[in-house]
Amino acid sequence: MKIVKTQVGIIGAGPAGLTLALLLRKHGIEAIILENRSREYVQSRVRAGLLEQNTVDIYKDLGVADRLLREGLVHHGVYLSFDGQRTRIPFGELTGGRNITIYGQQEVVKDLTDVWLAGGGQIYFETPALKIENFETNNPEIHFEHGGETGVLKCDFVAACDGFHGIGRKTLPPDTYREYTVTYPFSWLGILAHVAPSTEELIYAYHERGFALHSLRSDKISRLYIQVDNTEHIDNWPDDRIWEELSIRLGTEGWTLKTGPIFEKGITPMRSFFTDNMQAGRLFLAGDAAHIVPPTGGKGLNLAVADVKHLADGFVGYYQKNSAKALDNYSATALKRIWRAQDFSNFMTTLFHKQDQHGSFQYQLQKAKFDYIKLSKAYATTIAENYVGLPFEAFE
Amino acid sequence: MKIVKTQVGIIGAGPAGLTLALLLRKHGIEAIILENRSREYVQSRVRAGLLEQNTVDIYKDLGVADRLLREGLVHHGVYLSFDGQRTRIPFGELTGGRNITIYGQQEVVKDLTDVWLAGGGQIYFETPALKIENFETNNPEIHFEHGGETGVLKCDFVAACDGFHGIGRKTLPPDTYREYTVTYPFSWLGILAHVAPSTEELIYAYHERGFALHSLRSDKISRLYIQVDNTEHIDNWPDDRIWEELSIRLGTEGWTLKTGPIFEKGITPMRSFFTDNMQAGRLFLAGDAAHIVPPTGGKGLNLAVADVKHLADGFVGYYQKNSAKALDNYSATALKRIWRAQDFSNFMTTLFHKQDQHGSFQYQLQKAKFDYIKLSKAYATTIAENYVGLPFEAFE
Repeated sequence: MKIVKTQVGIIGAGPAGLTLALLLRKHGIEAIILENRSREYVQSRVRAGLLEQNTVDIYKDLGVADRLLREGLVHHGVYLSFDGQRTRIPFGELTGGRNITIYGQQEVVKDLTDVWLAGGGQIYFETPALKIENFETNNPEIHFEHGGETGVLKCDFVAACDGFHGIGRKTLPPDTYREYTVTYPFSWLGILAHVAPSTEELIYAYHERGFALHSLRSDKISRLYIQVDNTEHIDNWPDDRIWEELSIRLGTEGWTLKTGPIFEKGITPMRSFFTDNMQAGRLFLAGDAAHIVPPTGGKGLNLAVADVKHLADGFVGYYQKNSAKALDNYSATALKRIWRAQDFSNFMTTLFHKQDQHGSFQYQLQKAKFDYIKLSKAYATTIAENYVGLPFEAFE
Repeated sequence: MKIVKTQVGIIGAGPAGLTLALLLRKHGIEAIILENRSREYVQSRVRAGLLEQNTVDIYKDLGVADRLLREGLVHHGVYLSFDGQRTRIPFGELTGGRNITIYGQQEVVKDLTDVWLAGGGQIYFETPALKIENFETNNPEIHFEHGGETGVLKCDFVAACDGFHGIGRKTLPPDTYREYTVTYPFSWLGILAHVAPSTEELIYAYHERGFALHSLRSDKISRLYIQVDNTEHIDNWPDDRIWEELSIRLGTEGWTLKTGPIFEKGITPMRSFFTDNMQAGRLFLAGDAAHIVPPTGGKGLNLAVADVKHLADGFVGYYQKNSAKALDNYSATALKRIWRAQDFSNFMTTLFHKQDQHGSFQYQLQKAKFDYIKLSKAYATTIAENYVGLPFEAFE
């Protein structure tokens, strides 16, 4: 049996695990990452693509943002559309210059992996974590499988950055946390297409036929979504039908949606999930292991990065300032932003999705909110500041 | 049969009807008011008591605000409480000096009635309107009963300010409007008590036992409410129990609720109601005839005053500027504010009432919103600006 030792054992080489590892290295704390999948698989998983100001700032500070700053698309605003009427939220003007950057999650993972490995960091790929033991003591162990052999990673702390289906959350003692799940009564049909975006900034649209979102990945690749019923099947959606529907829902006077070859399409259910505790003894959860938000607010990746920022602060306090205070408060600290993100994601989801019938009381309240965005700087600012991400100081 | 003639026939001598009559007089337009009840009854009906900045400004402009300015209590803020934690929304600071005035609706009615009658205005008290006829022509008629006789008020226009149960809305042709009704799954148990308020400004509170509100009428009379089930009966609520519950729900460290003799108590259901059209031909609805909001936002009286401000603008356009445009657009103009008020009232209601079980996902979102109020000036501003009432220019 292979035995490996480190200070912080990290499960998962996604954005949470990699960012944590790099934050720890910056402070001279050792870490080793175990990753279930292959390097190729992890780096090609298409996920989120919206980086908050906080996330970009952390990557700049870590010195891993060169390509991101070169290739990422900085957006200074977002378009909101309702019944064909479009308005813009100008981020900079409303948040004192903060903004977002469009850069695919798989690119982030590529960049972080390169830097971590180049600096001598270790990742055991294709290495499933089987069991987390002794996390209630000072000597936790992560049992894993690697190349047909079993092994043990002995560490001071375990950071479970292992996603919604990982063993991290399942290992938390059941009496230490409650789970919350909300399944929305609709799904997103999403496509990736080889076509220049028909907009410089994202468009979120309510339409009587349902929600639509025009997003993008680069100046040659567009990412678009439409709301469909949970029972919909992708076979009912030939490419022409998707483009036609997008064109109607996103439409506004004097604007045309460009179409192109679709190279990926799929249907994703919309849900909210979170645990109200993210730690037990020396085991800590971060990212999707502890919470899922509907993609409407673009918060998933950013929450993961914020989690590990707080977790790294905790480890730095423990190892270098002889204080376990930040580590003990990790859950409470992280949950403030998570609750905010859950509420904002829920707000954006309920504002732009068709829920009750068009013209209903529910619809009138949605319309009233949209009209209010147009007339109130304060209300527009609440959307802008949540969208670009509230600064860490805001929660202190 | 008695026949009376005027330019604008008004049904209802509540705040809507009286304010409209005075606005018309200011511009030299004639009006006569028919009122179902006696003068004494109308002036002693205890209703709302919160006047927005707009409402006070209109009364000042009409020269009917002397007593209001002398006896009304100006509030520069409101307290919001959640799980025993209290925060304050400072109106002036967030809205450029706007605020609210606490002054009972029956006092407003008294003042307006006095001024209207003193200036030679007519009100037929104890005069039920029976039927509105010919409102699709230029010669509408209001048929009424007065002192055992029937009569007709012949007029150019009919303003139905006759409340939720009045004949105005029922007279609108069914194909010209849709009605929306939302009944909330809880009611308010309200009391009036002879006791100095335990707070200078209103307190809205979420508590795991349910919502509570500390309001007031004067420096000697307090008005308080608690959320109860729709099936509750007032007999289950002896005074001691009410004070105990209020004390728990409104409680915060270092604060004590003063108690005193309760002289009125009752249970009111919470609902939202509105029509999406308020006019047909020469018939116009204003106030409760067209919409009911849950009392949580304090909007009922203020919406009625805003309605008749727009309606008066319409009549002034018609009689003095030879333009029916404002009158034709009356519904559309008034509905902008009504939708905003419906949404704000719904927001305040869902934020502070116990809906799902304490600790549920719904509760976490409510708590997230409360926490957000404390950290975001923009979010606090949205509450302040809705609470004191958005200026008329905002909707133009």
